[in-house]
Amino acid sequence: MFLEKIDNPAYLKTLALDELKILAEEMRAYLLSVLSEHPGHFAPNFGTVELAIALHTVFDTPRDKLIWDIGHQAYPHKLLTGRREAFPTLRQSGGISGFLSRAESEYDVFGAGHSSTSIAAALGIATARDVTNENYKVVAIIGDGGLTGGMAFEALNTAGDFKKDMVVILNDNQMSISATVGAFSKHFHKLTSSRHYNFLRSGAKELMNLISSDAKDIASKIEGALKPGTLFEEFGFRYFGPLDGNDLGALVPVLTGIRDLSGPILLHLVTEKGRGYPPAVADPVGFYSVSGPFDLKTGKTTKPKPPIATYTGVFSRTLIELAKQDSRIVGVTAAMPGGTGLDKFADAFPSRCFDIGLAEQCAVTFAAGLATQGMRPVTAIYSTFLQRSYDQVLHDVCIQNLPVIFAIDRAGLVGADGPTHHGVFDLAYLRSMPNMVVMAPKDEDELQHMVKTALVYENGPIAFRYPRGNGVGVKMAEKPKALPIGKAEIVREGDDVLVIAIGNRVQPALESAQTLADSGISASVINARFVKPLDTALILPLAQRIGKVITVEDGVLMGGFGSAVLEALAADGITDVQVTTLGIPDEFIAHGDTSQLYAMCECDAPAIVRAALDFCPCLVR
Amino acid sequence: MFLEKIDNPAYLKTLALDELKILAEEMRAYLLSVLSEHPGHFAPNFGTVELAIALHTVFDTPRDKLIWDIGHQAYPHKLLTGRREAFPTLRQSGGISGFLSRAESEYDVFGAGHSSTSIAAALGIATARDVTNENYKVVAIIGDGGLTGGMAFEALNTAGDFKKDMVVILNDNQMSISATVGAFSKHFHKLTSSRHYNFLRSGAKELMNLISSDAKDIASKIEGALKPGTLFEEFGFRYFGPLDGNDLGALVPVLTGIRDLSGPILLHLVTEKGRGYPPAVADPVGFYSVSGPFDLKTGKTTKPKPPIATYTGVFSRTLIELAKQDSRIVGVTAAMPGGTGLDKFADAFPSRCFDIGLAEQCAVTFAAGLATQGMRPVTAIYSTFLQRSYDQVLHDVCIQNLPVIFAIDRAGLVGADGPTHHGVFDLAYLRSMPNMVVMAPKDEDELQHMVKTALVYENGPIAFRYPRGNGVGVKMAEKPKALPIGKAEIVREGDDVLVIAIGNRVQPALESAQTLADSGISASVINARFVKPLDTALILPLAQRIGKVITVEDGVLMGGFGSAVLEALAADGITDVQVTTLGIPDEFIAHGDTSQLYAMCECDAPAIVRAALDFCPCLVR
Repeated sequence: MFLEKIDNPAYLKTLALDELKILAEEMRAYLLSVLSEHPGHFAPNFGTVELAIALHTVFDTPRDKLIWDIGHQAYPHKLLTGRREAFPTLRQSGGISGFLSRAESEYDVFGAGHSSTSIAAALGIATARDVTNENYKVVAIIGDGGLTGGMAFEALNTAGDFKKDMVVILNDNQMSISATVGAFSKHFHKLTSSRHYNFLRSGAKELMNLISSDAKDIASKIEGALKPGTLFEEFGFRYFGPLDGNDLGALVPVLTGIRDLSGPILLHLVTEKGRGYPPAVADPVGFYSVSGPFDLKTGKTTKPKPPIATYTGVFSRTLIELAKQDSRIVGVTAAMPGGTGLDKFADAFPSRCFDIGLAEQCAVTFAAGLATQGMRPVTAIYSTFLQRSYDQVLHDVCIQNLPVIFAIDRAGLVGADGPTHHGVFDLAYLRSMPNMVVMAPKDEDELQHMVKTALVYENGPIAFRYPRGNGVGVKMAEKPKALPIGKAEIVREGDDVLVIAIGNRVQPALESAQTLADSGISASVINARFVKPLDTALILPLAQRIGKVITVEDGVLMGGFGSAVLEALAADGITDVQVTTLGIPDEFIAHGDTSQLYAMCECDAPAIVRAALDFCPCLVR
Repeated sequence: MFLEKIDNPAYLKTLALDELKILAEEMRAYLLSVLSEHPGHFAPNFGTVELAIALHTVFDTPRDKLIWDIGHQAYPHKLLTGRREAFPTLRQSGGISGFLSRAESEYDVFGAGHSSTSIAAALGIATARDVTNENYKVVAIIGDGGLTGGMAFEALNTAGDFKKDMVVILNDNQMSISATVGAFSKHFHKLTSSRHYNFLRSGAKELMNLISSDAKDIASKIEGALKPGTLFEEFGFRYFGPLDGNDLGALVPVLTGIRDLSGPILLHLVTEKGRGYPPAVADPVGFYSVSGPFDLKTGKTTKPKPPIATYTGVFSRTLIELAKQDSRIVGVTAAMPGGTGLDKFADAFPSRCFDIGLAEQCAVTFAAGLATQGMRPVTAIYSTFLQRSYDQVLHDVCIQNLPVIFAIDRAGLVGADGPTHHGVFDLAYLRSMPNMVVMAPKDEDELQHMVKTALVYENGPIAFRYPRGNGVGVKMAEKPKALPIGKAEIVREGDDVLVIAIGNRVQPALESAQTLADSGISASVINARFVKPLDTALILPLAQRIGKVITVEDGVLMGGFGSAVLEALAADGITDVQVTTLGIPDEFIAHGDTSQLYAMCECDAPAIVRAALDFCPCLVR
């Protein structure tokens, strides 16, 4: 048993190759036992066990800097860097993060959650090293999916130009998140079928023979043995690969060989997703991440299927139904066909669904191009990833007032994925963009109506954003019907306090109204539906009459929905109205259970009750 | 005289090659006569005269779609598409735009102002064409600078994968905006020194001989003659080039030859910046754009140098002074060393200034990487271009609370560059990001203090944003001194109305107070300095005492500075205060004279006076 002795990577250096191989199997067994109980990213981490071991064996971490991209592949790195015991707390409240986090460990040199950032960060670190005349090594590890993001290209391009000493490891598992997208990936996947690669896969022995003990010769010998990739060399990188990234016997000497080379180096590894766990190897997409306990033998989930529809499912079904009647409707996804539900749309309309890869900027401008020709592009992107295309939404869609439809999934707090993934900024930044219509549904039934509303609306861009996971469990209307643009609805009438809620906060608002009623306080509740345009015709007179207003949203308070209400009151010259805004405070919210997080953020039902009682202590009967 | 007869491109098809060449010279003369009187982008447009003629001659526009990137190179296209007579109104109020604009012409298929969008838009258009079974041609034209932007790579990568019929023309003028940045550009610049290219430059006759009248053979013959570029082929493009893009005799047959090819085609042209005007050829950086009348013979500007310092100049000088005392200070620019004043910093500290190319995403994450190692990276980016790195600012800088300094130039309305370039969103979106400090100086002297403030502050990210052009003309303090974080200042005391202004609106606020005083209304004026953290300790009691508040900003009202004041009042439970928020309304603002635009937006001094009079008609004595 080696794993239990590893408190930090120094111990690895005392182990022989055979012992490292045993360690790899121990790590796989541990990962499997934890992840079969707890949700997390699965298959990519089974592919990087040997890589993490080899990197920490060959490099002098944390003095040498490892910069992992995105974090989906960094669990083995966590196990080796002091987080083995804490690992079962993964992604739980107070537990360790599912991504890289500087706050969590000095071995996490640069935090990550979104993809494609590692090369740029590594280049910055290598540059700082040289400006200050230090001499540590810098290694960025990026997946083939991450490499489809534009900023990874920007960074490759700049790094090749700056000629800094740094290593980029391309962890090519032949499949980014779902399928391989992009000509570039196909190019380097092609490399892996080359003679050299097959030769190396057949065993590391020949490689070991090639590599003499004379360190000076190692690089050129490896390079000579592995030479098919010219593309990265056009970017100014010296290319080594492809190499079997699950073969410790090859990895350790090759990493040792390239460690001390100067200039930008690219090492192309091929790893197997799910390596060592046959059900995951057989279904790497299904096992990309696991969402709950599963049976170790069969790989089948043991969590009962929830009886309630998910928001994603309702979006997907509604879109497919509407697309049957309108051939102009097309789908656009940025490497998330499964997560957004566009996979089913693609099954139904294979020629009308487009996966652009982890490239949200291109996806949005591509959709804008579609819209110029009369198409109805439904661009389905998670709230947090839409941040990547802020400028494209503004510059390419809104300025031109193009009728692009944005289906924004995973809005609000997302739970276990934490601060890098909470979708809490969208309401604030989308409403500041002229021409944009912004909606959020109170439940899954309203979502289907908003999908219809967005597709009926052709005057400009329109967005609807909805939470991760299950709906409220309401009865679904038989047919989606378009809502009038900019119209809110009163969902409960009362005289003492007015709660104006948006999206998934309408339900807590109604609960709080019920609680308040028990205390003798009568609350009106408005479901705003539209953050923009705001239904001032409904809201303002009611606010003025009642005089005490609470706004509730699952987005940031700074510039968010509540601010829109404040702006409207001020613009109308209404004073004498007390307003309390509830929502996400001005800090980054940790990972954890969503309902606990909303409680912590003071925007759940009890918080609404407290805010109402603060207003009207005198009213309590 | 052909130019004056061209109302639309159809006329071009009636002209012989020799006549097209005469037309090119007429267009150059016309461009020169207009641009020597009116400011605009200069050198790149002199390089694309032949390209615009050839494209509109060979393709059937507007049925065939030309998608120009960024717009700096599209003036000749404008001259040929119905905007010849209007051209002298370029970039003036009510005149034609300096960029592409769908609203302006059906020949402007996709608007642009920011770079690197054209391939993604073209791919969307080509995809729409195929979904609807139409059969027009799609051509994207992108510069070598635009190709350093990540979204251009994303789009190349996707287009190569989708295999749509489309042509990408790389207009390689060997120098993006200032110098060539990025390994990739260097790669294709290298191509131009190849034997084939030199062969072609030596004359188009040989090419014409190569190209027989048999159209089927044309492509393979051109391809055979011009074969050095494998890199684009790795992206799935069929590559043709490099070709002299100023040689109409070569351009027309080559474009004709590739027009009907299927699949993604890349045509690599080399054009000469400033072509035909020797002073611009000699100094293409100085002539990238021209800012006022110049002497035709010498190329020297005839506009007297303003006696007042520019904001950019003050930033640059201050930074250089401070960097002398702190070796941790480094500069980061995204292809704008001249525009941001970092060119002078680079002159002073060549090893401490980094130009990342037109790649704001990489620039910001690169800066974050520098900050992790204790450097003090000053990231100087125009407000409008920082939009490109929204997610990097949020995800890589703010979540990790890294002390990156953002020097945001061209904030507020920028005048002649218009809606794609106004820097009016930054206050709203930056303040919604936790950990970020946001400042704006009232004048150029305060800017130097804010530069110092930012460099003294090491607790997290900090931004200062300042306008384009001249300062107010105030006396400069001898030394910059750090301001206390989050502290505003009262710049005028009064009792009837409180004007809270930020940045370049402080001056109009003071003017309005003077005007109001003449009407017997006494106004307090606060220079907020910090949008975040807001100085609620100063603002709230004063607001409450005076009861009538006007906020003024040069940013969007939706979620902006005024909303921050409203939020603070509401959070403190203060009612009974009337607030009018002045700023940029919820629409895109056209190009034009800045002071006229501020008047139109109702956030200049007279607008403040009107708002105050609306509050207190009774006070007028």
